[in-house]
Amino acid sequence: MPNLRLVMPHELRHLKTLDEARRILWDALPERILEGRFGGRQTPMAEAVGCVLDEDVVCPADLPPFDRAIMDGYAVRAEDTFGASEGLPAYLKIAGEVRMGEDSGFALSHQQCAAIPTGGMLPEGADAVVMVEHTQPWGDDSVEILRPVAPGENVVRRGDDAREGDVILSAGHRLRAQDISALAGIGRATVVVRRPRVAVLSTGSELVPHTEDVAPGQIRDMNGPALRAAVRALGGEPVDLGLVSDDPALIANVMRRGLTEADLLLVSGGTSVGVEDVIHELIDALGKPGVLVHGLAVKPGKPVVIGLVDGVPVFGMPGHPTSCLIIFRELVAPLVQLACGDRRHPPAPAKARMTRNFASQAGREEFLPVRLEQRDGAWEATPLLGPSALISTLVRADGLVRIAAVAEGLYAGDEVEVEPFE
Amino acid sequence: MPNLRLVMPHELRHLKTLDEARRILWDALPERILEGRFGGRQTPMAEAVGCVLDEDVVCPADLPPFDRAIMDGYAVRAEDTFGASEGLPAYLKIAGEVRMGEDSGFALSHQQCAAIPTGGMLPEGADAVVMVEHTQPWGDDSVEILRPVAPGENVVRRGDDAREGDVILSAGHRLRAQDISALAGIGRATVVVRRPRVAVLSTGSELVPHTEDVAPGQIRDMNGPALRAAVRALGGEPVDLGLVSDDPALIANVMRRGLTEADLLLVSGGTSVGVEDVIHELIDALGKPGVLVHGLAVKPGKPVVIGLVDGVPVFGMPGHPTSCLIIFRELVAPLVQLACGDRRHPPAPAKARMTRNFASQAGREEFLPVRLEQRDGAWEATPLLGPSALISTLVRADGLVRIAAVAEGLYAGDEVEVEPFE
Repeated sequence: MPNLRLVMPHELRHLKTLDEARRILWDALPERILEGRFGGRQTPMAEAVGCVLDEDVVCPADLPPFDRAIMDGYAVRAEDTFGASEGLPAYLKIAGEVRMGEDSGFALSHQQCAAIPTGGMLPEGADAVVMVEHTQPWGDDSVEILRPVAPGENVVRRGDDAREGDVILSAGHRLRAQDISALAGIGRATVVVRRPRVAVLSTGSELVPHTEDVAPGQIRDMNGPALRAAVRALGGEPVDLGLVSDDPALIANVMRRGLTEADLLLVSGGTSVGVEDVIHELIDALGKPGVLVHGLAVKPGKPVVIGLVDGVPVFGMPGHPTSCLIIFRELVAPLVQLACGDRRHPPAPAKARMTRNFASQAGREEFLPVRLEQRDGAWEATPLLGPSALISTLVRADGLVRIAAVAEGLYAGDEVEVEPFE
Repeated sequence: MPNLRLVMPHELRHLKTLDEARRILWDALPERILEGRFGGRQTPMAEAVGCVLDEDVVCPADLPPFDRAIMDGYAVRAEDTFGASEGLPAYLKIAGEVRMGEDSGFALSHQQCAAIPTGGMLPEGADAVVMVEHTQPWGDDSVEILRPVAPGENVVRRGDDAREGDVILSAGHRLRAQDISALAGIGRATVVVRRPRVAVLSTGSELVPHTEDVAPGQIRDMNGPALRAAVRALGGEPVDLGLVSDDPALIANVMRRGLTEADLLLVSGGTSVGVEDVIHELIDALGKPGVLVHGLAVKPGKPVVIGLVDGVPVFGMPGHPTSCLIIFRELVAPLVQLACGDRRHPPAPAKARMTRNFASQAGREEFLPVRLEQRDGAWEATPLLGPSALISTLVRADGLVRIAAVAEGLYAGDEVEVEPFE
């Protein structure tokens, strides 16, 4: 009557250390991924700010596309103003008025000018603008010019901002508001940025969507929303594959969809027996080379499967919510950041003193959630204890202390480095 | 024939300094805004990561909602295992099997146990789980228990993560992935976060949407996309009011829409004559107190209108793209950050040496875009010159040097502080 799957085969395996797992994964990744040539996507301009460009942006036509006034005044041929002064003005006949957004439709002859607003297109023949402050009306159809202007004065010329064929922004550049301004100026509707799609699937017959009510024995899916949030926080685009029960055929179907739609695939196991092995078998069945690592000497986070399926990294994530997020941080986040073209350094760890002893099992690396508090100008780290099935320890924590596999714990007063969240 | 609006009245005004403008605006802001009680919005969980909570989140029901196994094994009454050992096991009869996501439907009597997977709901009467590794099958319907367990061992109890009525997250907290996990666990579909809506309207008869082709005299709207990107980069939610021509009645209509839909309203002037005054008059006409500041002693960025319309801050932004973004940074961004609950410090300025002289007009504060380069281990700042009608100076720049109004410029070799972009 007892379910035979209760015998857990991974107990018998040699567990890999995190460093070993990273090396195995990194060694197996295709060039394309190692060089960051994945995760590039045509993205609407409205969503591109903060993303890293994945193309060289070439200016398709001169910007501005015509000579423009940058002051209100009169468009002139500069030579007609040479020598003009308050005592001896130049007199120019007004040939017309430039209207915003329109070609004036006329050209300036010698001794002519045209009223022009800031931003207006210079009429043919004009090469400068005299500011309105340096003019005076003269009769109905002329103005006095009280100061000379040089050719190009108070004007931006066609192509001054960028010329046709110029590379105005290069691949690898992180887009700021001014870059969006320039991209709009040259007429871009979309831009290719590094924004990897990370598909997230939750499995477990006990799970219901987080927006639904739970019946006895049911739990709301926490890992799906949490992993998608973690992807989003790094600049990736989460793909929500929803949740499926512990049925290998169903899981395989949805995993296949994830492999075609996304750059990375995360399958968070329910916590139920044997799910880890189902994911393991499916990764091997779906493509080559399949499973790379199965099981880590890490607490929390032992039940992890790392695989590569026809070029797409796939992670079987632990079901416990705390383990799931710590494994994301250690193994998945670096890959998402690589795909996002994110070369920023991680935030520096904070030095703190332990407020109490903490015993750790030698032989596996441990991540200890701690709360940071300042006392007398120094930082103190208080361990937050609780099984990894609880999320509240991580919610109350400000960061993690990494305890090496060889260590058997920490003493109150020990100085530790706390890797901050965010 | 020349347009009479060419006489620009703001030349005659007393221009305010940036500091004066900030003080006037801040003095006029309602309590609600000063205390950051604006910009709070019900937001889908999928978009909430990185945002600051604007509510205390109360746990509506115990999490987990029932006692759960955190190991695979046998649910037992702990007392039935006391004294058990490999030499002298306890023998328990298997009353049934717990299935994931279901109530077992039976209760344990004395000397009974139930097979249970990790995450399974404990049957009534059970208070601990014996790991499968510490058991041995015994006949068809019993198991040997080889080690004792204490009550609560290998179990998380109902409410261990959070109890009904607990405040699990407080207003002001910035949401991380683990917080999203907890919110999903308690069944939240949305959460109130600080995510101010900032409406952005571009005006100018010369403008076309950035996705369209330009005819002679036309320019693509750059300020709309750039301002919306700047809002988004700070964590606000841009509201796209599109663009309208220089028609006061049309502009007023769209501004009214912005005032009802958003927490802040930005109207970027076309660069054409008199637009600034149109915005000025509209702000006064739309509500109280109306215009607070008109014109700044700042380069670039002089033509700015700051107003408050029935509690909503309204900014008439300069039309030139560089001026527009520098004024956003100086005047609008702090308000957006306040609304976002963002208490992080701005990035520290970089110390650098000027590579060449730069003349500045005394009497107005100036923001000089510079490119930063490292030479012999020190930073050098090279000024990027060009009229504010060009965006390329800001695109090529890494930051801004602020030149005080009293200064007449900088010399090559001067040490300056560069405020970095991002």
